[in-house]
Amino acid sequence: LNIILVEAGELNAGGRVLLSGPRAAHIVNVLGATPGQTVRVGVLDGPLGTGTVASIDTTTVALDCVLEAEAPPRPRVDVLLAMPRPKVLRRLWAQLAALGVSRVILTNAERVERPYFDTHVLRPDCYQPLLIEGLQQARDTRSPIVSIHRQFRILVEDQLDGKSDAALRLVADPSATTSVGDAVREGLDRNRDARVLLAIGPEGGWNEFELRLLAGRGFMGVGMGARTLRTDTACLALLALVHDALGSVAG
Amino acid sequence: LNIILVEAGELNAGGRVLLSGPRAAHIVNVLGATPGQTVRVGVLDGPLGTGTVASIDTTTVALDCVLEAEAPPRPRVDVLLAMPRPKVLRRLWAQLAALGVSRVILTNAERVERPYFDTHVLRPDCYQPLLIEGLQQARDTRSPIVSIHRQFRILVEDQLDGKSDAALRLVADPSATTSVGDAVREGLDRNRDARVLLAIGPEGGWNEFELRLLAGRGFMGVGMGARTLRTDTACLALLALVHDALGSVAG
Repeated sequence: LNIILVEAGELNAGGRVLLSGPRAAHIVNVLGATPGQTVRVGVLDGPLGTGTVASIDTTTVALDCVLEAEAPPRPRVDVLLAMPRPKVLRRLWAQLAALGVSRVILTNAERVERPYFDTHVLRPDCYQPLLIEGLQQARDTRSPIVSIHRQFRILVEDQLDGKSDAALRLVADPSATTSVGDAVREGLDRNRDARVLLAIGPEGGWNEFELRLLAGRGFMGVGMGARTLRTDTACLALLALVHDALGSVAG
Repeated sequence: LNIILVEAGELNAGGRVLLSGPRAAHIVNVLGATPGQTVRVGVLDGPLGTGTVASIDTTTVALDCVLEAEAPPRPRVDVLLAMPRPKVLRRLWAQLAALGVSRVILTNAERVERPYFDTHVLRPDCYQPLLIEGLQQARDTRSPIVSIHRQFRILVEDQLDGKSDAALRLVADPSATTSVGDAVREGLDRNRDARVLLAIGPEGGWNEFELRLLAGRGFMGVGMGARTLRTDTACLALLALVHDALGSVAG
């Protein structure tokens, strides 16, 4: 953990939080903090700050937190992801949060297998702790907002504009020749504050209908080079390239 | 599998290979190929090509292979990786091969835990099938060459020049301000055929001594942006950025 995340409701009016469980154990056993020392803290979906260890007893660490005035900005990237295999998604949650994603929009597609939706990996009590793990790794407080859509067409035609305000919409497409970097830089030339919505298909790719629907809603194809990557590898590689081109993260 | 990889010794003089097991099952059950149809093939560390299904019986698929004259070039990137947790390394093998790495040089470092080296994940019978899985995903035939080094100083001072001929040596360093893209482009300005050796430290980072040793052997620090990533996420993100800057893969 590179920061200790707390929820706003855990702080009292004076900025003190009493931690027990894994966070307390991390402060004592991994950071080796003693009273008077400081640790980096953050309030979930709120500001970053510093916590001074006020006291440590066998089960509880008391931290006095001094927080910045404002929460860090939301990551400039949203992801529209065809539902991957549950085992793959389970591993992706923390990595998506660590690389920086503001919204994770999970969708059905023709080549998504139906049973994928019947998994505990889609339940907040499974994915929230994994997202928080990724935020604590990356020193961010902004938890990705997750939504799950079983009807691709309704999502893309009726709901997507309400889900993501990204001005630049990209779809990873092995047949496209525009690179991610070029597409992002062109988008920034038109609108320097543009956010990016990045669509990543299922393991077998989007079908023709899905690609047409995305194109009709402004998604521009971006190439993946000669190498075909697994969805999860592609997702991380593309996110790194988008953030790099946005100048918001260098990798 | 986006190609079927065979070993050179499996081909007879006429270019026929008899497959059974998972590769035969994939051709029949996933690709649904029937006699006369073609599938993409490759010879491990040799050329790519096309295999025409000659016959299918209950256990065996016979393919007549026509191969290109030359093997694809080796990926332009080598990786020097501080030994990650075995569970993490297990997941990385296929992804490294898929993204394109010519050499995987695993090393000890102060912040690597000793038991990490006592793992079956370092045995060729564990990692070779995973590397081949990644190659078959990415349609490459060039299996990364793996070496394992328990003495960082001896590796860096005495052995590294013999392991990697990369003219451009980069080390991921959270405190560095040069971006991966800028470092690679500068390196290509000096030598347009430059290969890249990318060093990635353990979860807690290289120590001062290790960073100095690397700097003394020509490694330039490249920044990781504000977000701190887990080793495996960082490794994939950095590889994507290096390949993108080299123009050898776009993600």
